[in-house]
Amino acid sequence: MPLAAYLWQRIRQLGVQSVMGVPGDMNLELLDYIDGVEGLSWVGNANELNAAYAADGYSRVKGCPGVLVTTMGVGELSAINGVAGAYTENVKLIHIVGTTGMRAQMARAMIHHCLGVDPDHRVYAKISESVRVAHCWLDDARTAPGEVDRVIRECYLHSRPVYIFVPMDFVHVPVPASLVDHPIDLAPKIDSEACTSAINAVIERITSSSAPAIIVDALVHRFGATDIMNTLLDQLQIPTFTTPMGKSIVAEDKPHFYGVYNGQVSLPGVADAIEEESDLVIDVGFVHSDSNTGGHSRKALSMDRSILVAADYVQVGCARYEGVYLVGFLTRLSQTLTTSPLPALPRLRRSLSLPPPSSPSDANSTHITQSWIWKRIGTMARPGDIIIGESGTAQFGFSDATFAAGVRYITQIYFGSIGYSVPACFGAAVAQGEIHNEGNGGMGGTKGRTILVVGDGSLQLTVQEIGTMVKMGLGNVIIMVINNNGYTIERAIHGPEQGYNGIATWNHRLLLSALGDKNGEVNSRIVNTKEGFEEVISSPEYTDLNSIQLLEVMMDKMDVPWRLQAQIDLINERNARMKSLGNEE
Amino acid sequence: MPLAAYLWQRIRQLGVQSVMGVPGDMNLELLDYIDGVEGLSWVGNANELNAAYAADGYSRVKGCPGVLVTTMGVGELSAINGVAGAYTENVKLIHIVGTTGMRAQMARAMIHHCLGVDPDHRVYAKISESVRVAHCWLDDARTAPGEVDRVIRECYLHSRPVYIFVPMDFVHVPVPASLVDHPIDLAPKIDSEACTSAINAVIERITSSSAPAIIVDALVHRFGATDIMNTLLDQLQIPTFTTPMGKSIVAEDKPHFYGVYNGQVSLPGVADAIEEESDLVIDVGFVHSDSNTGGHSRKALSMDRSILVAADYVQVGCARYEGVYLVGFLTRLSQTLTTSPLPALPRLRRSLSLPPPSSPSDANSTHITQSWIWKRIGTMARPGDIIIGESGTAQFGFSDATFAAGVRYITQIYFGSIGYSVPACFGAAVAQGEIHNEGNGGMGGTKGRTILVVGDGSLQLTVQEIGTMVKMGLGNVIIMVINNNGYTIERAIHGPEQGYNGIATWNHRLLLSALGDKNGEVNSRIVNTKEGFEEVISSPEYTDLNSIQLLEVMMDKMDVPWRLQAQIDLINERNARMKSLGNEE
Repeated sequence: MPLAAYLWQRIRQLGVQSVMGVPGDMNLELLDYIDGVEGLSWVGNANELNAAYAADGYSRVKGCPGVLVTTMGVGELSAINGVAGAYTENVKLIHIVGTTGMRAQMARAMIHHCLGVDPDHRVYAKISESVRVAHCWLDDARTAPGEVDRVIRECYLHSRPVYIFVPMDFVHVPVPASLVDHPIDLAPKIDSEACTSAINAVIERITSSSAPAIIVDALVHRFGATDIMNTLLDQLQIPTFTTPMGKSIVAEDKPHFYGVYNGQVSLPGVADAIEEESDLVIDVGFVHSDSNTGGHSRKALSMDRSILVAADYVQVGCARYEGVYLVGFLTRLSQTLTTSPLPALPRLRRSLSLPPPSSPSDANSTHITQSWIWKRIGTMARPGDIIIGESGTAQFGFSDATFAAGVRYITQIYFGSIGYSVPACFGAAVAQGEIHNEGNGGMGGTKGRTILVVGDGSLQLTVQEIGTMVKMGLGNVIIMVINNNGYTIERAIHGPEQGYNGIATWNHRLLLSALGDKNGEVNSRIVNTKEGFEEVISSPEYTDLNSIQLLEVMMDKMDVPWRLQAQIDLINERNARMKSLGNEE
Repeated sequence: MPLAAYLWQRIRQLGVQSVMGVPGDMNLELLDYIDGVEGLSWVGNANELNAAYAADGYSRVKGCPGVLVTTMGVGELSAINGVAGAYTENVKLIHIVGTTGMRAQMARAMIHHCLGVDPDHRVYAKISESVRVAHCWLDDARTAPGEVDRVIRECYLHSRPVYIFVPMDFVHVPVPASLVDHPIDLAPKIDSEACTSAINAVIERITSSSAPAIIVDALVHRFGATDIMNTLLDQLQIPTFTTPMGKSIVAEDKPHFYGVYNGQVSLPGVADAIEEESDLVIDVGFVHSDSNTGGHSRKALSMDRSILVAADYVQVGCARYEGVYLVGFLTRLSQTLTTSPLPALPRLRRSLSLPPPSSPSDANSTHITQSWIWKRIGTMARPGDIIIGESGTAQFGFSDATFAAGVRYITQIYFGSIGYSVPACFGAAVAQGEIHNEGNGGMGGTKGRTILVVGDGSLQLTVQEIGTMVKMGLGNVIIMVINNNGYTIERAIHGPEQGYNGIATWNHRLLLSALGDKNGEVNSRIVNTKEGFEEVISSPEYTDLNSIQLLEVMMDKMDVPWRLQAQIDLINERNARMKSLGNEE
């Protein structure tokens, strides 16, 4: 079996069906082997950064790694920002790079895509060191299969990107075909004793607590623990919060769900409920980055009030249990509770405030406002739908939406790279289609929709991936372009009227057509009012989606979600305080 | 004077008038100071990779560095592939990155755009190490002005990218305003004695040679030696060749100019004239990369037949003269020859073959062929025009074109990153406009045009920069889209009918309009025949250009320039030979 065939077989075994990337002369022969693997196909993105973002979106929906193929140097570097995003947001990615052959590498030949005179062909592999958890060079037929298996395992253990470098002259080298018969061991080696101790300690703490709370955060999703987390929550019935990055992991229709905790940038009562009124806070799969903690405005809890469930350890008070991993821990905790249920736990001590109703002025306004649209898109989403929110106002706004169970929400909050959402939407929509074809999509027979919400500024960075959606004939995508005439989030932060926050004025109604959609003009609409918005989203084209739809939503340049303003105010206040101490953030 | 003002003043002093980049919350306050510098303005690109390519194109036309501003991490990494291209092609670039403030850096705070837990905010500065020649952190008001000056000097000395990292909280710190009064010393320190020795040795060798030849290559342009090189060639009257990367440096209407030398991938007679018939070959500003040497098919010359004039040394036979720099050396050589002219030198020994005329079948064909179009675009270009050729068939084809003196040709052959050409065209067009406004554009009063030739595949990678052209109201750009239904160059290399060499089918006639051009549809045309092509390029809209024009040129999927086919054949033969020896390229 040729080495390339082995590689693609292994990747298919993980559940991957679509391979992202851009062809180049150093990877063409590698791509030849994709079609030979049943159920695996090549996508072909518009550029490499988009391919990386698409692989990221694909992974978030399917749970398996997203895979992208690039060419040494030019392609590899173009993709690196997307890989870095996957790294910091714990998304599984396998980045396969086709490189020069070994003879050219050893001769340090000045082949195109190299750097300067006497070039080190492996210099790019050093460049990506900080954005991956493992890599291998398939430059030895004897070790190559083992190396592929090793880096794939690392990809799962850390839920982060890995790189596989394939010199052109090793694509066809033979490896034993029988090796693919044994699946790769993807599970971490749990310290069973530590796990048991951790479970006992956690149960003991919960049992003795009078007001416990749980915060469910992003890593629960990334490490594939969404289902077991919800099972466990049903068992525990403890008041549950999520975070901006964790949103949509917890079924939001459950009585134990109380909304988004984001430090001081939360709805009234939320921070108090956790920081003041709870005597035990279990923080599961946490990512304590700035915009996931209200600009680091969470109040620190004393050790004895907190339990941390991280990707690879559990900490109960001062005791840290190493070798205890997220899914395994939650699974075994759930099993323990099934055999020995807890005594009935206290419900939340007080009824929390709900999201404040739209202010009267807003309720009366006919035009579309920030305080209205995110909640409306939230109620628009049906089980099986995926919502992608771009960095910017959408990201801050969607914390106010309530999603039906079975709605997935994707956004990139910690890395926060604008332009992420369009290719991620493409990858998510491809994944959604695959899940649907396997009979697992949607609920009640409704086909899931992938709904992208992107600002007019962010759209411009990666717009060409809409062409790939058209090329693939995707029929499950709604693209909402928030047209607020430039980078509104930046206007809110600094320079509201500065020229640098302006952008080129595009004609969004022609975009689909220009990018190849024969029905593009018919399927592109523009709305200025809530009424117009309602009309469009309730039309059969949207409710019974079978072609790409683009909706341009006109909004005020300076209208921002209250959460964004609250976080900016908080940081400005802190900076003013620090400045008076001679030290600015 | 605030540090940021100092930085922008210094940059303006280099001749820079336009700053590329994308705004982000960590660079907004830095951007505030641009408008305060007379003659400097912010552009605002559609994304960061495009900004880097645009800065590259701008630098190639203006001679000063291209400048781009990004935000830490997300922007910085998105741009890195464009910076790497500038590095390997010796283009001056100043990449300014707005970063987190020092307090957040020292606390290793999890601020958006960072990597993981306990993040090192300076990790990205390590990532770009291999693609720059110097960098500095402006985190100390006392040293910052000196650091700015130092890295700018390094940018010029190596003609390669440098990075300047600006923590948010150092934007406004005061520095002495008087520092800008002394210009930065940008010239290398020449070893005068070595230079004199080198000049004597070179003159001695030329005088004793019976059949000398000169090859003028890319670094002559990159180190700003184009004018002095042409002066020197007029003095020397030695048969002169150029390379694919050096094309358009030498005035092609001169009797001493004999065309493009590209190893075995040259017109008949060229390789022989240099490799067999010359007894002295002076290789000036060379870049010996694969596609600049016919796939490394140049015949190696014995030491005693060759003189190398590199960026920072001159080698005559076995003697290497260090501390001798390109411009200084050529200038002093020219001065020496002015005071002591050489005896009349022999002209080339034989009349070289000229490019073969189009084959009869091609001459009779009405549709547009590869063997026809490149020469035709060559004759179409007027003094002051800039031609940008994308990696792919254009790059191989343009070696057959003959350019009028004063036509500049830009392409990225060594790095060869597809997608380069669209933003580079934007940057070049901005630079051309600035030169025109200074009264130096075009010749005979004709305003120069920037003519982009890009394939339908490459166009998709970076298409959004056309929107920036529209936003800026550029009226000097002609975009020719070669529509040959996918990646033709890759079809020629491998997998002619493979799906991965296909692309999304766009409606190019709607592109300009979608990207905001109100006259977009009128200014977008499609041609299938030579006659149609002739008609369009001779129309007043093209000869008297004052708005962006887009021309879709339909060509055969499998038609390729003869040079591309010749290089592929050559490499395939070599690989077959190596394979029989058990080692493939």
